[in-house]
Amino acid sequence: MAACRLLTRDSAAQLLSNIDTVLTDCDGVLWQGTEALPGAAKTIAKLREMGKRIFFVTNNSTKSRLSYVEKLKNLGFEANEEEVYGTAYIAALYLKNIAKVTGKVYMVGNKEMAKELDLQGISYTGVGPDPIEGTVTDWKTLPLDPEVTTVLVGFDEHLSYMKMIKAASYLSNENVQFVATNTDERLPVGNGRVIPGTGCILAAVHTAADRDPVILGKPSKFMFEVIKERHDLDPNRTMMIGDKLTTDIMLGHNCGLTTLLVLSGVTSLEEARQMQASNSIEHQKCVPHYYLNNMGELGDIL
Amino acid sequence: MAACRLLTRDSAAQLLSNIDTVLTDCDGVLWQGTEALPGAAKTIAKLREMGKRIFFVTNNSTKSRLSYVEKLKNLGFEANEEEVYGTAYIAALYLKNIAKVTGKVYMVGNKEMAKELDLQGISYTGVGPDPIEGTVTDWKTLPLDPEVTTVLVGFDEHLSYMKMIKAASYLSNENVQFVATNTDERLPVGNGRVIPGTGCILAAVHTAADRDPVILGKPSKFMFEVIKERHDLDPNRTMMIGDKLTTDIMLGHNCGLTTLLVLSGVTSLEEARQMQASNSIEHQKCVPHYYLNNMGELGDIL
Repeated sequence: MAACRLLTRDSAAQLLSNIDTVLTDCDGVLWQGTEALPGAAKTIAKLREMGKRIFFVTNNSTKSRLSYVEKLKNLGFEANEEEVYGTAYIAALYLKNIAKVTGKVYMVGNKEMAKELDLQGISYTGVGPDPIEGTVTDWKTLPLDPEVTTVLVGFDEHLSYMKMIKAASYLSNENVQFVATNTDERLPVGNGRVIPGTGCILAAVHTAADRDPVILGKPSKFMFEVIKERHDLDPNRTMMIGDKLTTDIMLGHNCGLTTLLVLSGVTSLEEARQMQASNSIEHQKCVPHYYLNNMGELGDIL
Repeated sequence: MAACRLLTRDSAAQLLSNIDTVLTDCDGVLWQGTEALPGAAKTIAKLREMGKRIFFVTNNSTKSRLSYVEKLKNLGFEANEEEVYGTAYIAALYLKNIAKVTGKVYMVGNKEMAKELDLQGISYTGVGPDPIEGTVTDWKTLPLDPEVTTVLVGFDEHLSYMKMIKAASYLSNENVQFVATNTDERLPVGNGRVIPGTGCILAAVHTAADRDPVILGKPSKFMFEVIKERHDLDPNRTMMIGDKLTTDIMLGHNCGLTTLLVLSGVTSLEEARQMQASNSIEHQKCVPHYYLNNMGELGDIL
């Protein structure tokens, strides 16, 4: 059972000798918004020097792999496309290889998700603004695209009531598949502003459709299964670093990885301790093996 | 315990002799969209002839009292303003008399809700389109109106990501009150189209804000308490007619009323029977005392 221990210099040496692959979350671990977190790039470089393989795994669906590589490089992280797994890319893979989508995807999503669908040769519609017009009399006879076989929900800053009508109407056909990138609720940016996450957009569509989506992001094992298969990972020798208990840490437990929580993102040590004190099996899956204040500290003790 | 019995000519005579007030839902009971349901107006007229007092109680927040009276009259129902209780009006009453709002209300709502707030002398902002602009860099420093002390969520066909950011950001201040008209999920209109209800809009804001709102619509007792006090109702001599188990019928049970389900709206007899077969206390509160196919049938057997 994980015990939420502070990772010390001694325990880090011991731990890293048993690890050859590191999966790391991005928002709240490597950066906050558009700024790198102090020491994070240095830590990643040090892990590479030690011969560890690195994979960047994020639920954020607002960037294609190429855009992530660009952001990583701009913020001082060495990275290549094969190391980046975001839910825009993962959704395209899922639709192509698992759901085997024919016809068109109705996307409550964004341009970067569209890019990944393009690369997999999947047709779609719905990206961009779609403001509401007319009244309920018009809405109830709204034309639907007969080619749509799948609804995909990710981050969409252009969410509108019109999109909610369309998504829920497509989903009223039980043969239409329902897929979502992730359920992260919000990206706290401090100073009294709340940036709602995909989970809020999904909540609207989900409530309208009254159906459960397949969810691809962490803590779903799907993302890890893809990486594991492609890169031949051994879960016993893999560590997951993240800032969120219900996604990053639970993913680790779901896949048999060692987990390290950093406190530079959405989670306080108190919340982790509350999970630890709980008897619920779900909560126990949110308890990290180790914690540190931030990625910079990991570099310092390696 | 309610038993979901078919209301017959005999049991109707017996029932109505013990009732002097009838509360009736509107959508799915008196009308469907813009069309009156067959026989419903005649039934209301017959109940009036029998000396019953009538109140129209709806969770729909898209109309002010005056607009409801107009719609009722256009569809052949006799009605006056004092008989109509919708959540636009109820929300204005709550904000004025219970929440005692000072400052401004940030409204994820519509123009008819705004009219009711105007009548109570409450200031507000937020009504109408508010499309997203900029990027997360702009959103995290978005100006907020320091006068806002309350967030009110009702039906808003102009829901946008910008409104979600603003509502959740106002609500990150724990002194800001959070009020919602209702949680109805959808207005099914058949032919494969789904019209999302306020519950979908609220789900987005609720998930972003991570706080529970005060909910005013059925099955909350608030609406009935207002009517009861103003018109001196005796719950033991009051019947609630509705088409939805979790709002109309549960309201009836919450307030000690006799309940009649009509099957012309969102609920099938099978769903009512499932509630009846369940051991859950919550589900038992959704079992109507009686059912009929529609309001027209009630008129026929009276």
